Amino acid sequence: MERKRIAVDMDNVMADIGFQLLGWYRDRTGVSLTEQDMMGKDEIAVFPDPSIARGFLYEPGFFLEAKVMEHCREVMEKMNKVHDIFIVSAAMEFPNSLAEKYAWLERHFPFLGWQQFVFCGSKSIIHADYLIDDHLKNLDFFAGEKLLFTAPHNIHVTKYTRVNTWLELADIFL
Amino acid sequence: MERKRIAVDMDNVMADIGFQLLGWYRDRTGVSLTEQDMMGKDEIAVFPDPSIARGFLYEPGFFLEAKVMEHCREVMEKMNKVHDIFIVSAAMEFPNSLAEKYAWLERHFPFLGWQQFVFCGSKSIIHADYLIDDHLKNLDFFAGEKLLFTAPHNIHVTKYTRVNTWLELADIFL
Repeated sequence: MERKRIAVDMDNVMADIGFQLLGWYRDRTGVSLTEQDMMGKDEIAVFPDPSIARGFLYEPGFFLEAKVMEHCREVMEKMNKVHDIFIVSAAMEFPNSLAEKYAWLERHFPFLGWQQFVFCGSKSIIHADYLIDDHLKNLDFFAGEKLLFTAPHNIHVTKYTRVNTWLELADIFL
Repeated sequence: MERKRIAVDMDNVMADIGFQLLGWYRDRTGVSLTEQDMMGKDEIAVFPDPSIARGFLYEPGFFLEAKVMEHCREVMEKMNKVHDIFIVSAAMEFPNSLAEKYAWLERHFPFLGWQQFVFCGSKSIIHADYLIDDHLKNLDFFAGEKLLFTAPHNIHVTKYTRVNTWLELADIFL
């Protein structure tokens, strides 16, 4: 594949925010949901008390401590050598997350530069060949090729080409 | 003019960063430069000790306390009603500025929403009809129509259509 400009979402594509929500909710309330419970459900509304889960998105540490999705780091490092990668996060809804997301990227992806980071409110402003994202609200308004990254909340979506893992992304882009 | 998608730079277009640099440098060193001294010069290298001026860009308060450019607020409010406005700042070089720039926009432009904010490293990722910016490094890599907003450092540039004030932007877009 020739060199492409690829926009990559952070939450649930690079950072395992679903796992983070489950863990924080369990620690805070004692209530354990499984990834199976999340299937096909809105990732916040699925919790018995959604306001608690939503509150986590504004709490210090929530984004900073998220774990990296499986195989993301090594595949991204290779993709970064042969494509123009931009990390595009709709971070503006949670302004306290801006510094944490920046620090998280520097910590886990030291081979990326700040020139490649984009924090926005709407991804309709993004000019790229591909957008890899788990949310329809982002993909719907993107002008280029759309890849839906599988997350529990989107398993019933059939609208876009689906990728399930970073190994599948490696097959497409490497 | 039909509805357009307009990307607007912050520093030296919405926020008077040149004035801020002059004031902070004078307060810190006792050395007063005038706007005339800045004409045609790099906005940091022009100072007797550029490292001091560059240091300001990393200091708390520097971006937060910048004054709004003349006529920017009222013209922007009108433009925001008839066009799709995005505020696009190459803020990633100064990660501590992210929260301050967000707060500054909310303070001075309450009619804008976070959906319209974009903080990026490179403006080559921006998809819009227009980019209004004072820096060639941003305009050069933008795919749409380019408008060079006059700042002391760029007065000798002849490469792009120039706008000198927000009143001229009103003439174009309103």
